Amino acid sequence: MKVSVIGGGSTYTPELIEGFFDIWDKVKPLKITLLDINYERLSIVYDFLLRMIKRAGAEIELEMSTDLEEALKDADFVINQIRVGGNQARLLDETVPLKYGVLGQETTGAGGFANALRTIPVVYGIAKKIEEVCPSAWLINFTNPSGIITEMLLKYTKVKSIGLCNVPINFQKLFADLAEVSPEDVFLDYFGLNHLSFVRKVFVKGEDRTKELFLKVRERISDEERMILDNVNMFPNYYLGYFYLREERVEEVKHKPKRAEEVLKIESDLLNLYKDSSLDKKPEELSRRGGALYSRAAVNLISALSGLKEGFQIINVKNEGAISDLPYDSVVEIPVYLQKDRFHRYVIGKLPISVRGTIQSVKTYEELTIEAAMESSYKKALMALTQHPLISSMTLAKKILDDLISTNKDYFPKLI
Amino acid sequence: MKVSVIGGGSTYTPELIEGFFDIWDKVKPLKITLLDINYERLSIVYDFLLRMIKRAGAEIELEMSTDLEEALKDADFVINQIRVGGNQARLLDETVPLKYGVLGQETTGAGGFANALRTIPVVYGIAKKIEEVCPSAWLINFTNPSGIITEMLLKYTKVKSIGLCNVPINFQKLFADLAEVSPEDVFLDYFGLNHLSFVRKVFVKGEDRTKELFLKVRERISDEERMILDNVNMFPNYYLGYFYLREERVEEVKHKPKRAEEVLKIESDLLNLYKDSSLDKKPEELSRRGGALYSRAAVNLISALSGLKEGFQIINVKNEGAISDLPYDSVVEIPVYLQKDRFHRYVIGKLPISVRGTIQSVKTYEELTIEAAMESSYKKALMALTQHPLISSMTLAKKILDDLISTNKDYFPKLI
Amino acid sequence: MKVSVIGGGSTYTPELIEGFFDIWDKVKPLKITLLDINYERLSIVYDFLLRMIKRAGAEIELEMSTDLEEALKDADFVINQIRVGGNQARLLDETVPLKYGVLGQETTGAGGFANALRTIPVVYGIAKKIEEVCPSAWLINFTNPSGIITEMLLKYTKVKSIGLCNVPINFQKLFADLAEVSPEDVFLDYFGLNHLSFVRKVFVKGEDRTKELFLKVRERISDEERMILDNVNMFPNYYLGYFYLREERVEEVKHKPKRAEEVLKIESDLLNLYKDSSLDKKPEELSRRGGALYSRAAVNLISALSGLKEGFQIINVKNEGAISDLPYDSVVEIPVYLQKDRFHRYVIGKLPISVRGTIQSVKTYEELTIEAAMESSYKKALMALTQHPLISSMTLAKKILDDLISTNKDYFPKLI
Amino acid sequence: MKVSVIGGGSTYTPELIEGFFDIWDKVKPLKITLLDINYERLSIVYDFLLRMIKRAGAEIELEMSTDLEEALKDADFVINQIRVGGNQARLLDETVPLKYGVLGQETTGAGGFANALRTIPVVYGIAKKIEEVCPSAWLINFTNPSGIITEMLLKYTKVKSIGLCNVPINFQKLFADLAEVSPEDVFLDYFGLNHLSFVRKVFVKGEDRTKELFLKVRERISDEERMILDNVNMFPNYYLGYFYLREERVEEVKHKPKRAEEVLKIESDLLNLYKDSSLDKKPEELSRRGGALYSRAAVNLISALSGLKEGFQIINVKNEGAISDLPYDSVVEIPVYLQKDRFHRYVIGKLPISVRGTIQSVKTYEELTIEAAMESSYKKALMALTQHPLISSMTLAKKILDDLISTNKDYFPKLI
Repeated sequence: MKVSVIGGGSTYTPELIEGFFDIWDKVKPLKITLLDINYERLSIVYDFLLRMIKRAGAEIELEMSTDLEEALKDADFVINQIRVGGNQARLLDETVPLKYGVLGQETTGAGGFANALRTIPVVYGIAKKIEEVCPSAWLINFTNPSGIITEMLLKYTKVKSIGLCNVPINFQKLFADLAEVSPEDVFLDYFGLNHLSFVRKVFVKGEDRTKELFLKVRERISDEERMILDNVNMFPNYYLGYFYLREERVEEVKHKPKRAEEVLKIESDLLNLYKDSSLDKKPEELSRRGGALYSRAAVNLISALSGLKEGFQIINVKNEGAISDLPYDSVVEIPVYLQKDRFHRYVIGKLPISVRGTIQSVKTYEELTIEAAMESSYKKALMALTQHPLISSMTLAKKILDDLISTNKDYFPKLI
Repeated sequence: MKVSVIGGGSTYTPELIEGFFDIWDKVKPLKITLLDINYERLSIVYDFLLRMIKRAGAEIELEMSTDLEEALKDADFVINQIRVGGNQARLLDETVPLKYGVLGQETTGAGGFANALRTIPVVYGIAKKIEEVCPSAWLINFTNPSGIITEMLLKYTKVKSIGLCNVPINFQKLFADLAEVSPEDVFLDYFGLNHLSFVRKVFVKGEDRTKELFLKVRERISDEERMILDNVNMFPNYYLGYFYLREERVEEVKHKPKRAEEVLKIESDLLNLYKDSSLDKKPEELSRRGGALYSRAAVNLISALSGLKEGFQIINVKNEGAISDLPYDSVVEIPVYLQKDRFHRYVIGKLPISVRGTIQSVKTYEELTIEAAMESSYKKALMALTQHPLISSMTLAKKILDDLISTNKDYFPKLI
Repeated sequence: MKVSVIGGGSTYTPELIEGFFDIWDKVKPLKITLLDINYERLSIVYDFLLRMIKRAGAEIELEMSTDLEEALKDADFVINQIRVGGNQARLLDETVPLKYGVLGQETTGAGGFANALRTIPVVYGIAKKIEEVCPSAWLINFTNPSGIITEMLLKYTKVKSIGLCNVPINFQKLFADLAEVSPEDVFLDYFGLNHLSFVRKVFVKGEDRTKELFLKVRERISDEERMILDNVNMFPNYYLGYFYLREERVEEVKHKPKRAEEVLKIESDLLNLYKDSSLDKKPEELSRRGGALYSRAAVNLISALSGLKEGFQIINVKNEGAISDLPYDSVVEIPVYLQKDRFHRYVIGKLPISVRGTIQSVKTYEELTIEAAMESSYKKALMALTQHPLISSMTLAKKILDDLISTNKDYFPKLI
Repeated sequence: MKVSVIGGGSTYTPELIEGFFDIWDKVKPLKITLLDINYERLSIVYDFLLRMIKRAGAEIELEMSTDLEEALKDADFVINQIRVGGNQARLLDETVPLKYGVLGQETTGAGGFANALRTIPVVYGIAKKIEEVCPSAWLINFTNPSGIITEMLLKYTKVKSIGLCNVPINFQKLFADLAEVSPEDVFLDYFGLNHLSFVRKVFVKGEDRTKELFLKVRERISDEERMILDNVNMFPNYYLGYFYLREERVEEVKHKPKRAEEVLKIESDLLNLYKDSSLDKKPEELSRRGGALYSRAAVNLISALSGLKEGFQIINVKNEGAISDLPYDSVVEIPVYLQKDRFHRYVIGKLPISVRGTIQSVKTYEELTIEAAMESSYKKALMALTQHPLISSMTLAKKILDDLISTNKDYFPKLI
């Protein structure tokens, strides 16, 4: 098995690779190739990983490359974890919209929009190369906004793509902890879009324990989150708070250090640690980097697609009728039964009316964002932001869009 | 023909009745019965109308009543123009949401929501009486929020109901003026919800003159409205500005005298004029009362339903597939071909994506509002406001809802 | 205005041209170009038409051509009335399926299927030429099976195409006669597919007189047709009898002279008459040629598309939501409001359940037939026939298909 | 756990009960109550079963009753296996339609229609009693036509109902044998209606082995069945042959002994055997009774609904969006993931076009049949048969319907 990691120079890569320590012996020979455009960083991470692998006694052949075609050659799985413009660009997502009183965040709202516009052209290019070099490989997308990127991939390319998020696996763990069982025993009746999803029911070993576990989870969340839970009768994705607890979250975001800056600092610290040739295991500090359980989610997915395990995983896939009120060809985040070639969606049916409008308008925003990026359309970009529930106003959307265009400079397609 | 006017004591009634001066001779004998719960006001309006009718030489038998059953007896058409709580209650709609920086207005947003909650139970009661007393009568609803009230009627009662708004007829006149033709020569490719609608194309004598007439109409509108037109490529309902020009409109509404207060003053002036027994024609001052061309729209509709004329009229009716992306049984505002028993919807198809989310989320808000009122559900009321693009935030929605409940007192159903 | 008639050498053309005698003065200068691959026949018809035009005093410039590109140049309307393989091939449609006890007929069932397979490639070629030479022309298709041909045109080409059938205009006349009014006063609530349609309601001057007129029309039809009417509560297209009165119709078809042979005889007679240089008006015998009121339907349509008149006409167009239970992009036969650039479908909504299966399975047959022809697919051809309610059996379908392939020889695409 | 078996006096019951020998120790205490209207037969079966249970050493408390209410009391599962009118009535299903050259069979076509009309009123009555006596029990329906009966139950009652057929489990076994694995390792991508279903893909331990296993299964089937497989690229339910191999199957049915008569004979033989008080295990002869693996399917289902096992089972459930081209509230036969309270449909999406018409028209037939039975409507009964692909003709449908009404006498609702 060959796994290619696009953006492999990330300080997060050790977390990802560690996940393979559990399965290398079942899929051997296993080769992992790290690709990055930043050679210096890539080298540091690569050298450190060699030491980690050696210490773990894992038979993993590790390669590194700065050439996309070489890195993709013979790949069975491509993991996409690039960040276009790096955390410097992310800082724009977190600050520009805030000037207008609107959430700044790398995936939701205007920040996520900017991130999408920077990222879509680059990922599209990578996918075109995959079509050419390794057309039967699975592309697992981690790059945010993951739902939008996956929808672009499935609408505009032939690459077999899945969007992955760590929220579902963390929810599963949360409810497993509350029920005092292992995560495997928990099944979530879960639906929505990436970062706009709900848990409708929680099953433990097949038993519907929603009522009891929602009562328990109420104790772990803020008053505001409890209000959401109590009124929609579903457990909301944390990101839902950016919508339904808008004022509180904007305040919070305004007064907290920017995540981009934090991450820049953490990354710099981590790279220094990685350089230490005596270090041969994941340093404690890496947990501050975020992305809890991403490695677990990725390895679960690769295991299922390789036939090592079977069961439902919550991933971003084409709707194709799973949610009746959303377009047939758009991307949704739902449970899918996976086992090697099996890929069986779970029927959600009609959206619960209490949240139907929110999901339909964000889906409209997402489709318009993709079209804006692929067609370089200013009008579609403006209408995308206008359709977003966090903005709604076209005059406000225009101010933010013009500012994003000016600050994102060449990262953006030239919108006309 | 018998026409019953529910809320007939309105100072606006002379405008409505005047419309019948054009058709009485084609439908005679014509009886019009005015119903109102305010006897004093009803008497003043009634006496004045008798003089108007006499002067006009119209053979119209005018009655007044404060008894619903009596007023409905043998009616062919029932016109509903009540305002539950009067303009005093409307003042709440215009002021309470504004405290929270949100539009206050009798039909759109939180103001319209409060109006709906006050009005639905009363109109439902009237409709149940119509089912009993005059089941084959048409109910023409003017009462705002007209789309919501009509959807409630069509979902919860058997009354043949049509929702009417004066926006479409004014648009038709606007484009007729621009094209220098008579309104009959203009056909609008128009769709949406009441007060959330767009003109997609304008045809003059069958010719598609959209491009030219949109260029002309651009000169008549504000810079902000022009921005909407240019970006959605459709001519927006004035009320769209409450969404897409949110900040500007909120500022405007904040600093303008409240419409409810204006109307209270106008009504008082008008009633004084009406009392003057020498007055026997519509006073100039009535035009300040608003509702331009409502009388024309109503008489057109009654003419068509009576078989006096035929053609497309833009009204609020059940969707039944006209707009693919909205529920089959919800109410939409679209062109319908009318001639006596004919009632033929015009196919809109899929919503233009640039405005799809806005329309879908407002439709979600509307359905939840009706359910909240009919089921007295606090949760649904809260989710209705949360789904509304002008609010979006649940914490904000809660503040506004609690304030509306407290200020609207017994006008509201008891939400639990 | 230029009208190009593809298949202009038909003996039927005089009927068509006569229709223009009513409107030439409103659209002048009017040029009509007849195209045919049979020069001899074309010349006879052409010469005769020149005399007819002269006698009528119509200012119509008549041309003839055997070159498609020349004939299409500058055309505003293209009328397609070709018959691929002529009546000799039609004879196969009428005889081959009958060998297997199945209806033989040029439009319905296996006969219509064979006709479609012969015709689709040729009409596709013509349409590609129209795209090139006169892309803004309207293509009015008379060629059977008209619904299938029109769906192919709208799915695979960019030509503005409308399918026309004379059934709706004859129904309108029938009910007008029964109601003793002029056809313009009758509106039919009509829906379905070409040759598989129903009249749900009949309106006379806007009044719903369905009940009374269905009682009257009952007297004019056979016992069997009355059975259909009484059980579906809708007036069926004559062709519905091929489905619902299958045995009777097959018997009838078996024992009647074949229509193809009749038409061959009529055509020969007509051409002899046309050759008579003293003949300058439509001979009586032409009425035996069939196609009553086709000329009226065509001229009505051209008049509406030119802006000379307005109103509903029943034509074959893309569904786009008009009938909820059929694919969005398939072709249906429904009322459309036409006036120059206006083209406004009428909403049918969900199909009446009593006939839903019949219409859905014939639509499936139609789509498969088009795909079979365009993709030269034997499997799709076989499944098309298997899906047809007149066949249903795959073993039966295979026998018929193999026989049709063998007898139609090079007229068929090579199915693999 | 209490299981009530309605129609428990069937000679088939020993087969069913034997299934519980595998699970009684996991669900104990287990009580099984047999209900039947034929006391004599019930007693024979009951006594024999007591001996079987004893020999097996199973701790199962067995009861018998002729009182519905008593039998249902405290039931957790109700198994419905009644046959209204017994095999005498079934004989009508197998012979009456054949007089008209149309398949006679207890579930498909006109025979299944008659069976539905006899059965629906009786099962409706049972369900109403379940609503009253044991509202939280699951009703597992074996009674044919199982899809129609289940749809009636889910549309007209509140009983939690599942329709079960032994075809899916036999398919699973068939492909497991071909792949030389155990049935648990096979997953079928399966969809359709009861007795009108297809296997789209076969997965073995998650691997898509459709191609190879279809090649293998081709060797096991008749030439005609192979033709279906090859042309639809899906493995068809045996009953599909009644449609696609119509002529062959009608001939076969004509010349074979009637199944009803065979079963009458087998039943008589079996009852004689059961009477032998020395018999305490399932006699060999029972296998001739048919219904292979029904017991396995039932026990699997009960095990899953009780939480003893989990996984996909193919059952008849409400569509709710699983198949896009069929009504939302109709019943379909698809894989559902079951584990105690979990009940998660698998998304089928749009129907493959090659069989779309067949499935849509049979679904129309099914819905009309249910409405005909519940509303006692002759017109709907006639249109149901007319919509069925095996009949299609209304004149033919009328002959068959009138004959069925006359021969089924009081078993039918009085159609008006």
